[in-house]
Amino acid sequence: MGINLGNFLSSKKKDRKMIQFQDLDHIDGVGLSSISANLYENHRDDLVMFYFREGANFASVYTRSKVLSENIKWNLDQKTKKIYSLIVNTRNANSFTGDQGYRSMEKIAEYASQILSQKQKEDEEQPVKIKTKNIIFGCTGTIGEIFPEEKVKVKIPDLVKKIKYTQNKYIWMKAALGIMTTDTQPKLAMEECNIGNTLVKIYGIAKGSGMIHPNMATTLGYVFTDANISNEILKKLLKKNISNTFNAISCDGDTSTNDMLTIFSTGKANHAKLNGINDTKIKEFDEALNRVLLNLAKRVVADGEGASKFVTINVKNCKTENDAKKIGFSIANSPLVKTAIAGEDPNWGRIIMAIGKSEVLLNLKRLSIKFGNLNIVQKGKVNVNYNEKEAANYMKNMNIDINVDVACGSKDFTVYTMDLTKKYVEINSDYRS
Amino acid sequence: MGINLGNFLSSKKKDRKMIQFQDLDHIDGVGLSSISANLYENHRDDLVMFYFREGANFASVYTRSKVLSENIKWNLDQKTKKIYSLIVNTRNANSFTGDQGYRSMEKIAEYASQILSQKQKEDEEQPVKIKTKNIIFGCTGTIGEIFPEEKVKVKIPDLVKKIKYTQNKYIWMKAALGIMTTDTQPKLAMEECNIGNTLVKIYGIAKGSGMIHPNMATTLGYVFTDANISNEILKKLLKKNISNTFNAISCDGDTSTNDMLTIFSTGKANHAKLNGINDTKIKEFDEALNRVLLNLAKRVVADGEGASKFVTINVKNCKTENDAKKIGFSIANSPLVKTAIAGEDPNWGRIIMAIGKSEVLLNLKRLSIKFGNLNIVQKGKVNVNYNEKEAANYMKNMNIDINVDVACGSKDFTVYTMDLTKKYVEINSDYRS
Repeated sequence: MGINLGNFLSSKKKDRKMIQFQDLDHIDGVGLSSISANLYENHRDDLVMFYFREGANFASVYTRSKVLSENIKWNLDQKTKKIYSLIVNTRNANSFTGDQGYRSMEKIAEYASQILSQKQKEDEEQPVKIKTKNIIFGCTGTIGEIFPEEKVKVKIPDLVKKIKYTQNKYIWMKAALGIMTTDTQPKLAMEECNIGNTLVKIYGIAKGSGMIHPNMATTLGYVFTDANISNEILKKLLKKNISNTFNAISCDGDTSTNDMLTIFSTGKANHAKLNGINDTKIKEFDEALNRVLLNLAKRVVADGEGASKFVTINVKNCKTENDAKKIGFSIANSPLVKTAIAGEDPNWGRIIMAIGKSEVLLNLKRLSIKFGNLNIVQKGKVNVNYNEKEAANYMKNMNIDINVDVACGSKDFTVYTMDLTKKYVEINSDYRS
Repeated sequence: MGINLGNFLSSKKKDRKMIQFQDLDHIDGVGLSSISANLYENHRDDLVMFYFREGANFASVYTRSKVLSENIKWNLDQKTKKIYSLIVNTRNANSFTGDQGYRSMEKIAEYASQILSQKQKEDEEQPVKIKTKNIIFGCTGTIGEIFPEEKVKVKIPDLVKKIKYTQNKYIWMKAALGIMTTDTQPKLAMEECNIGNTLVKIYGIAKGSGMIHPNMATTLGYVFTDANISNEILKKLLKKNISNTFNAISCDGDTSTNDMLTIFSTGKANHAKLNGINDTKIKEFDEALNRVLLNLAKRVVADGEGASKFVTINVKNCKTENDAKKIGFSIANSPLVKTAIAGEDPNWGRIIMAIGKSEVLLNLKRLSIKFGNLNIVQKGKVNVNYNEKEAANYMKNMNIDINVDVACGSKDFTVYTMDLTKKYVEINSDYRS
């Protein structure tokens, strides 16, 4: 299973690497460690530590669900300017676990802060005392099961012992594998760009819609850069770049209690100081960050449960971006559209239906729809040269582009999704035990 | 396929008929006729005429889609107090057919009004001239195909010739079959009640989520009564009773361009005059109408594409009814919840997820969830006696009740849906040709 990722990358910037997996190497200031805490019955890495020996600036965005997992509550409660460690576990979402789940985070943070403070004394010339508030968590897996605090805690010393200050592609791959649930592929992306004359790196890993016991297709995304960027700017950059990347994807329209995306900046690259979000020196970084996030987001979709096709929905020329977004997601979340795509059926009637139910007011006489370059609907009418066989042929592609032009404004939005297959139902209806 | 309808009816009012199909007989003032206009390749009834020889008061509600089919546009344009005929065709939705589709309605209405006016002269002591505005249409089927105006028109004389002024269960069944697309079962319901001391009848037929070429799971519902109720009161009754019946069901969250529900009142029953919606004499009728609509709505869900289970989601004690509705539909439209139910998996974590993504603010510490009578979550915690095997056993039922109590108000709402099966995907991804 899984879609060849080379395909959708190749339509992007010509000069980018078109390999299935990009080789991440080393980012100064990041330490990595992965281990098995025996959270799964079959032995696999399920606990990953990211350690920032000199601390890292950071910014996070979290799920919009009104039910927050306990680790996210913990993260939100920590008022700190620097993060020293992010600890990610899979198998247990620590969601709907109440006080026990929250206190587990607290106790693990206490224990990890002691051991990491000890490590500071051993490794650093100017050791700092790491506090619980300097540690945040990512959790993904089953909802409502007691959080396995002891199993995690007992592995912290080992986890710290194994921290690698110098990474290579294998170490990153191991971390990307360690945060997976039942993703079929690890998700990694990288970009390099200049801030002023200094080359900086942006690396990211993510996990997506794997199915594990009762899981909610949690998305975790972690981005690391050696650039020196303030929390305030990171926050603005993340907010700006998440809207058309991680917030532009939809697998099944469901929302996890655990979604989390965090960017960490170690500040080890020696570039000129940045003066706020409007500093022109940040432009390249801004764009590169967008590519990293989009790359990861697309990998999450492409590896969506049961996905056999990667679908790009370009909605153009709306009155507002929000209208474009509404139409895009209405199409992306329509089971009837998604099953038609799975069946390689150029069923444009269902696209019309999805546009109609989006509740966006539009002038149908201006509406145009293309599948790829094939004109299907032109200015509200079926293209007189519409050829069903040609359209059916197009639907055989692995990458499907649905282009909707409503011609009543100038705002665009692109949504990424996958098809809805029998495999999806199979994966998600298999009884857990 | 299809769920035994006796099951969900039996939990309702003890004194009601518990048969799979209720036997509708005769309603004074209604004429019925069904025919094949050869709209399908295989011969079947696909054109149904309802004829009200003395005219009928009426009220309609239509789809919320921003894309309206041409027949619905026609219906909305007719300013009349009496309807003399409703003509329903299947196979072609007359949606996205533009001027051609609209003019087809006009021409068919012109032709039918002539022929029906002729019939008035033949049959009635005081014949009236039937106008185009007295005729409305229901269409369901393929979107975007040219409307087969000639095929329908040519059959109007036959259709009129075959009108039966006296109906029996076979005639109603034939009409219910004639409006189906690929519904696996016709949908009929009936109630009798008193207005004052006079017994009146309420009969209804509906079609639901059958799949035909590219169709949008259009819901058509037509209700007929011999009561004498003004258009104004009918409108209020319909609005009031649709919210917890047809607007409380969800099959896949998609919305048709053609949905239509109309109630017709022939006024042939000789009961005391009704003085507005608050007249106490209308109470029984109001309740009976609700039962007819709910009965039909449930039949639509139970026959939803690929449905193997009928799911009732009771959301209780919210601050507002809208909150209860949001939570109910968030659960009902969640592919993860629906696939879990298909897999007979008591995956309550997904219920929590769906509640979370509903965006309703609530105090989780008060939340309780039951599957049927089984306590799963009590006041925000997993029931200490929760027994997974017992819960798994409950999920084997054909009728699943999910009871959510948020304990922060007094407003309830119930949503009806079905599970999401491989069969659904199979039906909807099969290529049309």
